[in-house]
Amino acid sequence: MIPRYSRPEMVALWSAETRFHIWFEIEAHALDAMAAIGMVPASAPQAVWAWWATKPAIDVAAIDAIEAVTKHDVIAFLTWVADHVGEEARFLHQGMTSSDVLDTALAVQLARASDILLADLDALLAALKRRAFEHKFTPTIGRSHGIHAEPVTFGLKLAQAHAEFARCRSRLEAARADIATCAISGAVGTFANIPPSVEAHVAAKLGLTPEPISTQVIPRDRHAMFFATLGVIAGSVERLATEIRHLQRTEVLEAEEYFAPGQKGSSAMPHKRNPVLTENLTGLARLVRGMVTPALENVALWHERDISHSSVERMIGPDATITLDFALVRLTGVIDKLLVYPERMTANMNRMGGLIHSQRVLLALTQAGVSREDSYAIVQRNAMKVWQSDGALQLRDLLGADAEVTAHLGPDALDALFTLDHHMRQVDVIFDRVFGPHG
Amino acid sequence: MIPRYSRPEMVALWSAETRFHIWFEIEAHALDAMAAIGMVPASAPQAVWAWWATKPAIDVAAIDAIEAVTKHDVIAFLTWVADHVGEEARFLHQGMTSSDVLDTALAVQLARASDILLADLDALLAALKRRAFEHKFTPTIGRSHGIHAEPVTFGLKLAQAHAEFARCRSRLEAARADIATCAISGAVGTFANIPPSVEAHVAAKLGLTPEPISTQVIPRDRHAMFFATLGVIAGSVERLATEIRHLQRTEVLEAEEYFAPGQKGSSAMPHKRNPVLTENLTGLARLVRGMVTPALENVALWHERDISHSSVERMIGPDATITLDFALVRLTGVIDKLLVYPERMTANMNRMGGLIHSQRVLLALTQAGVSREDSYAIVQRNAMKVWQSDGALQLRDLLGADAEVTAHLGPDALDALFTLDHHMRQVDVIFDRVFGPHG
Amino acid sequence: MIPRYSRPEMVALWSAETRFHIWFEIEAHALDAMAAIGMVPASAPQAVWAWWATKPAIDVAAIDAIEAVTKHDVIAFLTWVADHVGEEARFLHQGMTSSDVLDTALAVQLARASDILLADLDALLAALKRRAFEHKFTPTIGRSHGIHAEPVTFGLKLAQAHAEFARCRSRLEAARADIATCAISGAVGTFANIPPSVEAHVAAKLGLTPEPISTQVIPRDRHAMFFATLGVIAGSVERLATEIRHLQRTEVLEAEEYFAPGQKGSSAMPHKRNPVLTENLTGLARLVRGMVTPALENVALWHERDISHSSVERMIGPDATITLDFALVRLTGVIDKLLVYPERMTANMNRMGGLIHSQRVLLALTQAGVSREDSYAIVQRNAMKVWQSDGALQLRDLLGADAEVTAHLGPDALDALFTLDHHMRQVDVIFDRVFGPHG
Amino acid sequence: MIPRYSRPEMVALWSAETRFHIWFEIEAHALDAMAAIGMVPASAPQAVWAWWATKPAIDVAAIDAIEAVTKHDVIAFLTWVADHVGEEARFLHQGMTSSDVLDTALAVQLARASDILLADLDALLAALKRRAFEHKFTPTIGRSHGIHAEPVTFGLKLAQAHAEFARCRSRLEAARADIATCAISGAVGTFANIPPSVEAHVAAKLGLTPEPISTQVIPRDRHAMFFATLGVIAGSVERLATEIRHLQRTEVLEAEEYFAPGQKGSSAMPHKRNPVLTENLTGLARLVRGMVTPALENVALWHERDISHSSVERMIGPDATITLDFALVRLTGVIDKLLVYPERMTANMNRMGGLIHSQRVLLALTQAGVSREDSYAIVQRNAMKVWQSDGALQLRDLLGADAEVTAHLGPDALDALFTLDHHMRQVDVIFDRVFGPHG
Repeated sequence: MIPRYSRPEMVALWSAETRFHIWFEIEAHALDAMAAIGMVPASAPQAVWAWWATKPAIDVAAIDAIEAVTKHDVIAFLTWVADHVGEEARFLHQGMTSSDVLDTALAVQLARASDILLADLDALLAALKRRAFEHKFTPTIGRSHGIHAEPVTFGLKLAQAHAEFARCRSRLEAARADIATCAISGAVGTFANIPPSVEAHVAAKLGLTPEPISTQVIPRDRHAMFFATLGVIAGSVERLATEIRHLQRTEVLEAEEYFAPGQKGSSAMPHKRNPVLTENLTGLARLVRGMVTPALENVALWHERDISHSSVERMIGPDATITLDFALVRLTGVIDKLLVYPERMTANMNRMGGLIHSQRVLLALTQAGVSREDSYAIVQRNAMKVWQSDGALQLRDLLGADAEVTAHLGPDALDALFTLDHHMRQVDVIFDRVFGPHG
Repeated sequence: MIPRYSRPEMVALWSAETRFHIWFEIEAHALDAMAAIGMVPASAPQAVWAWWATKPAIDVAAIDAIEAVTKHDVIAFLTWVADHVGEEARFLHQGMTSSDVLDTALAVQLARASDILLADLDALLAALKRRAFEHKFTPTIGRSHGIHAEPVTFGLKLAQAHAEFARCRSRLEAARADIATCAISGAVGTFANIPPSVEAHVAAKLGLTPEPISTQVIPRDRHAMFFATLGVIAGSVERLATEIRHLQRTEVLEAEEYFAPGQKGSSAMPHKRNPVLTENLTGLARLVRGMVTPALENVALWHERDISHSSVERMIGPDATITLDFALVRLTGVIDKLLVYPERMTANMNRMGGLIHSQRVLLALTQAGVSREDSYAIVQRNAMKVWQSDGALQLRDLLGADAEVTAHLGPDALDALFTLDHHMRQVDVIFDRVFGPHG
Repeated sequence: MIPRYSRPEMVALWSAETRFHIWFEIEAHALDAMAAIGMVPASAPQAVWAWWATKPAIDVAAIDAIEAVTKHDVIAFLTWVADHVGEEARFLHQGMTSSDVLDTALAVQLARASDILLADLDALLAALKRRAFEHKFTPTIGRSHGIHAEPVTFGLKLAQAHAEFARCRSRLEAARADIATCAISGAVGTFANIPPSVEAHVAAKLGLTPEPISTQVIPRDRHAMFFATLGVIAGSVERLATEIRHLQRTEVLEAEEYFAPGQKGSSAMPHKRNPVLTENLTGLARLVRGMVTPALENVALWHERDISHSSVERMIGPDATITLDFALVRLTGVIDKLLVYPERMTANMNRMGGLIHSQRVLLALTQAGVSREDSYAIVQRNAMKVWQSDGALQLRDLLGADAEVTAHLGPDALDALFTLDHHMRQVDVIFDRVFGPHG
Repeated sequence: MIPRYSRPEMVALWSAETRFHIWFEIEAHALDAMAAIGMVPASAPQAVWAWWATKPAIDVAAIDAIEAVTKHDVIAFLTWVADHVGEEARFLHQGMTSSDVLDTALAVQLARASDILLADLDALLAALKRRAFEHKFTPTIGRSHGIHAEPVTFGLKLAQAHAEFARCRSRLEAARADIATCAISGAVGTFANIPPSVEAHVAAKLGLTPEPISTQVIPRDRHAMFFATLGVIAGSVERLATEIRHLQRTEVLEAEEYFAPGQKGSSAMPHKRNPVLTENLTGLARLVRGMVTPALENVALWHERDISHSSVERMIGPDATITLDFALVRLTGVIDKLLVYPERMTANMNRMGGLIHSQRVLLALTQAGVSREDSYAIVQRNAMKVWQSDGALQLRDLLGADAEVTAHLGPDALDALFTLDHHMRQVDVIFDRVFGPHG
């Protein structure tokens, strides 16, 4: 976790205080359920909750000090609780195993982290939608291979990103459901010393579903799917960030990240306005993606469990969610304040001498009866001259002077092939598909 | 693709013939839709389908030879079709771009590959269920950290795997839906020269959904999610394979892969019976996982598209699906024919002098009024003696001779703590959760 | 392995014939060494080599058929050899284990693959050097963050790539040394039934070094290092490919991949000239990188060995070397025939109204006694006006009209800050560092 | 960075204080070199060093506060320095770019981190050597596929690990040399405003080599190689950790991690002694490996540089080195204090009824004139009976009663095939190869 790439709410979720808080809730709710079936005296949960009602500060240092002796974190925590609650605390954790607490707590943290990330995605989607409608009909050149292809609109670019992040949102919801399970099943998951009703109660209290079958631990394919999903979202972050980095290139300059007053782009070159936020997002995407494989390697625990997954999750649990949270919020800010230059978009689009309309000519010739191969050759022949002139020649002019063209297409027919609105005919349809018929 | 790790059905799906077959269907269905709206004469699809009805052999070599000149695969294919269909073929592909064909074809292939993998998973689930019920109450030791913990049943191990692969099946269904989209939207996705109705028709014919917004290409976050899901399934394959490898260790030997007559385990050591199938599955899992990151890196294409994803998909499309298909079928065979040794399971379970019952003693002492800390110390003190005796001493005997124990627990109470059925009380409940109340 | 991304020499290295050829050599040389110390009769190697001298065709299908029964590849091969050599063949492989053959053969293949890759790198280095000197003083804009920074030369860009690939070459040499070891040490590496002298003899004959300590297998950290090194080289391939993709963008167009006559860039848009080779290289780099992690996961074999590494290596051994070989040769072709447009480089460089000289002004002001902060503010103030004018204003003019500037820098001093050769003063020095003082 | 998996020395290396300390050194040494050639007045470095000689506390919070405004870390640092040094500070950083400082500082940090890791490896190698010689002739069973193969010694296992980590050490030395370069070459690496002599001076002062050609940044293939090397070392850590985890399994129990008094293995099961350190090392290895791919993805920066690598390095720079440092030290402790149980090793070795000697019988029969195929069948036939008896039958007895055996091998000959020292004959030779002839 790098402070400069972190937001407080997500950081707090991974603090020791929050973790112990969740541990307490799990243990105390479990105690309630045990009391309900007579496993423990009713006085036990009463004592525990009564202490909790005093809102005791969680003394992380004290718990750490106990752990330094016991070398076991859950026992250390329970010992500290017992020091405060007294005698009745001995009923806590009966029939449970550490993983019941640890894994259920991790599920709570990952579910809450998901909620933050879902809210981040909602904000990003809102920004994308707003800017997409703003530029729904702002023409700009579509590029394949980095080469001018045919016109699109800037709104379409953002609508594509909206559709992509809406998919990411659905995937994250599925991933959240995958990890939001509760296991209170004892040493090897047999409920030998603690009945399933305890698990059901704790699950209900914490908004989780009971894990159908656990083996001391919640199976790690769930977590693998969760982190893999974060990796996919990171890929989409990189895609949109890369688009903006391209648009801000000196030669393109169709859009720019907002540049704050007082900001310095370069210690050496004062004129520089660099797409540093989206470059940063590209790097953050690499980090989140890099955590997918460790999570995948965590699945194959030995027998009912080994603890190799633990150190991995101590790092990637916070790091992946904190980094992606930061990235999504940063990306939302970039989109929200993005400086867009429609004039430059038009200027760039027109710099190729009308080559962007070449396909329409090709189709028109074909429909006029010329074979596909001949049509291709005719258009390419003229297109190459325009290309080599670097914008000095216009395709419309060359075609008008090419007898093999004019034999099939008159001046008006040719003019009609060089209009921009032709390319925007279906924008409404596409926006309806992405944003729904009522936007 | 390694022949020895491949199955014919999945291999055939990725052959050149199959690919060209799908390409033809896409182009011909699109032509139908174009004729329906008057874009092309009705004679065009008639001629094309009439030729197709002759069941022409697809001449891959001829198409490759054309591509060697044009350096463009779709144009090569269309040229070859035109050579056979004649004049009317010039209407094919009008207003379309290569990616309309390539990406939609890939969607068809990945959807069909998913269907094969889903069937594989069904077979695996059936085998796991059958063996799980067979060994529903076969006692065996549960192990955490590779160390004996408490008893479970062998059926529970398999039920866990069943639950895990059932989750994998759901994830794969979601991944299939994610990639099964059709894009026929032209050069930059604007439908400038081909209306959305063509896309809708082709999608319906091929069992796909229309891509809401494409940019020449279908967005690669879909494919990233697909391959990430295969990676998670591979992780689950590795987990179950690792379990079997452990069980077959010489010192454990609770289960063995089926050993065919005539099979040689080692060129040097004729007695060897090695878990080579599950070791192989471990390696295959690494391979499938290794394809996740390239798929994630494919998401951030430049602008409306670049073609960097193509070489990646040419390799991982076949390799990941073929390898996982092979792995799932191999794993099903391993489970189906697995040699299980219940006597050895019992012998192993009993070798620790009753230590596996230590937690129950701990709980009983606590409930009898001893503090948790004291109970832990008492049990651990005796447990350590048993541990160090390497099975020569029995925990039950030592406890019976420990005054701090007998002060709270009489002989009958102690005996009751050393029974096996205690650990099996909830097996029915768990099986109901995994397999449903009617199995 | 994808045929279209493969070259024959490297493919042949991984054929079944080559593999069996190497196996034979290992077994036969080992037999020589055994005969030399009297382990086997001298007649044995004589018979074996005599048969080999007849240059027998290796019947892969026959060997495969035997393997289908024995399920063991080395035994199948030896059985086939025995079928031809007769009685004396029974001395082959005595005291050896399959891995002695398999691992040593893999070492031979990886060493030969390295030799091909080293030759590829030599060719690439030669092309880079030639083009670097050709454009040693071709001015072009240096870009950080995709934004114009200060002038460099196109030769410097290529010299950087040369230095990078020269490092890659050194790393590959080290990686080659790491995997070029020979192990003939028996079932668990103890030489129990075969003395070290056999290993020494085979190693010498095959150009390998003896593995100091093996455990049936050659340790896989060696292979991990090898494939990790290929992954680093792939990263460098991607870097240079990305540079060219950027240079070929429509708005930049400072260089282009060579475009063959008859080549079609797009089925829909005849004018397109796309950087498809370097985009392809970007994808190939992802593939090679994706093989690093499986190789790293192969290191932790169980005890003296398990066979999980085998399936991984069957795939990534050929795939990584074949793909990287193809990529290096393709990249060499791209560099060799790259179309370079110096006029466009100059035009692009000058489009920013002299902003690229801003740092020199900043330094001059500082040296003239203005504080760094004030200098920065003065330059940035003028630079921003130029930036916003999109090239209409010239920085030199604005500075000449800024009293805070002219108070410190006269017209001649200002003019001197806007010269290009200033940036080329050290090109000779840098070239000497990269290519040596004599080029 | 997870505090529980961190050691202070390595953590301190990555602190803000250390970083600013190194930045100062770079800037001040560069100033010396500038003064030496008259670029700046001699009074400038004098003032700067004079202030430094007062050992000023580095006020990280103050620098951070400046950065919050300027959004540029190096400018923030220089501003803070200027606030203390006064007027003369304006000569600092002249002609330099931020990356000159950042990249050179990172090189210093990675070089120092390497030194710590090299010392860690030395300690690990020493522990491995000590324990290897201690158990040079402690017999234990060698296992392939987890199945008993033939005897080895426990010392050989440790010697193998020693050889592997010695290779890791060499690789790390090479990786250190790869990243220990200094670049002070200005905005785009042309030395336009700062001559190479400055770089040479700073490099010499900091123990680095000058980067032959930089492009504002030091090329990231160097860092990729560095982190890839750490990933390989992590793989070797996992291998040795996995070995120990296997040895500590309940059924094997040939070695155990040291178990501290007061340590609790399980909150539920007081008898548990778990290999938690080596399981933890397995997880830490996954983490370090997961950082390789982001480093590989960092290579392909755009043009002369983009800043996407920066966030990646801010995380993996500390995390990879801190985690690996911790892992190596932990592993050294495990080896150093490992509890080894030779009696159990012998007991396990003997539990298979002599099957571990089967290969020697096979060889003896072959040498006595039986065909390899027949020999194999004879041995396997008897071996299978022993195998199925689970140790009740002895291979020696069965062979002695098999007429096809006794026809070729008499009782004495058979007895001689079942001796242990046969397998230890070459241990001295192997130790010489690993540790040198004088140990």
